[in-house]
Amino acid sequence: MEISSEVGSTLSDRIRRGDVLAAACPSRAVLRHLTSQWGVLILIVLEEGTFRFSTLRRRIDGVSERMLAQTLKALEGDGLVRRTSFDTVPPHVEYSLTDLGRQAARRVRDLVDWVETSLPAILDARDEAGRRSA
Amino acid sequence: MEISSEVGSTLSDRIRRGDVLAAACPSRAVLRHLTSQWGVLILIVLEEGTFRFSTLRRRIDGVSERMLAQTLKALEGDGLVRRTSFDTVPPHVEYSLTDLGRQAARRVRDLVDWVETSLPAILDARDEAGRRSA
Repeated sequence: MEISSEVGSTLSDRIRRGDVLAAACPSRAVLRHLTSQWGVLILIVLEEGTFRFSTLRRRIDGVSERMLAQTLKALEGDGLVRRTSFDTVPPHVEYSLTDLGRQAARRVRDLVDWVETSLPAILDARDEAGRRSA
Repeated sequence: MEISSEVGSTLSDRIRRGDVLAAACPSRAVLRHLTSQWGVLILIVLEEGTFRFSTLRRRIDGVSERMLAQTLKALEGDGLVRRTSFDTVPPHVEYSLTDLGRQAARRVRDLVDWVETSLPAILDARDEAGRRSA
């Protein structure tokens, strides 16, 4: 990571740009949250709108309550997801993307779109690799 | 996933487009290889050129020999990475991206670039989230 030498400034003032290839750079943890199995899927669903926990859980086939809660918390901690709770009975909680989250989600969506549309070619390549190693 | 009803065709002929939100769709496994901690870093390093195992290991700070070998194998299985071995003594093995791999790496690189350049903003958001929950 590129770090300036200003004294008395906060970490975010001093880091000009992260470097994910450096194990100690905090960008690596952020990347891990974004690219975790459930992080990716949460971002692309929230790109479509604001949802309650139960809706997110239904949309993301296979996610457990625990993993959904944990991943939402990590993304909230990175400032990518906003959790809004309404003071109703029963309490009502909604999740949406922040501006930063929308920027991240756009890149994640590009990657997911590529995987989804390239799947036939990838499956062909996989068959071929299987034949070569057989 | 969208699957056509042609009979007697291979899976890749029948799948028109993957859907990562469906747990059973093979696109989810591909996405997981691509977005695994080491998968991301391997792709962005191989985008720069062809490298030997030992060079990859040195460039990707913190990766173990075992995880590097395992992740390269998964990416090779998806047709994204090409492994070329030369019949020399000692044997010489090189890794590079295939055409598909280059397409994937471009999207992954966009996401990594965003994370690296947005890191100061993300760290600020994280500080603020920490203060709110304190």
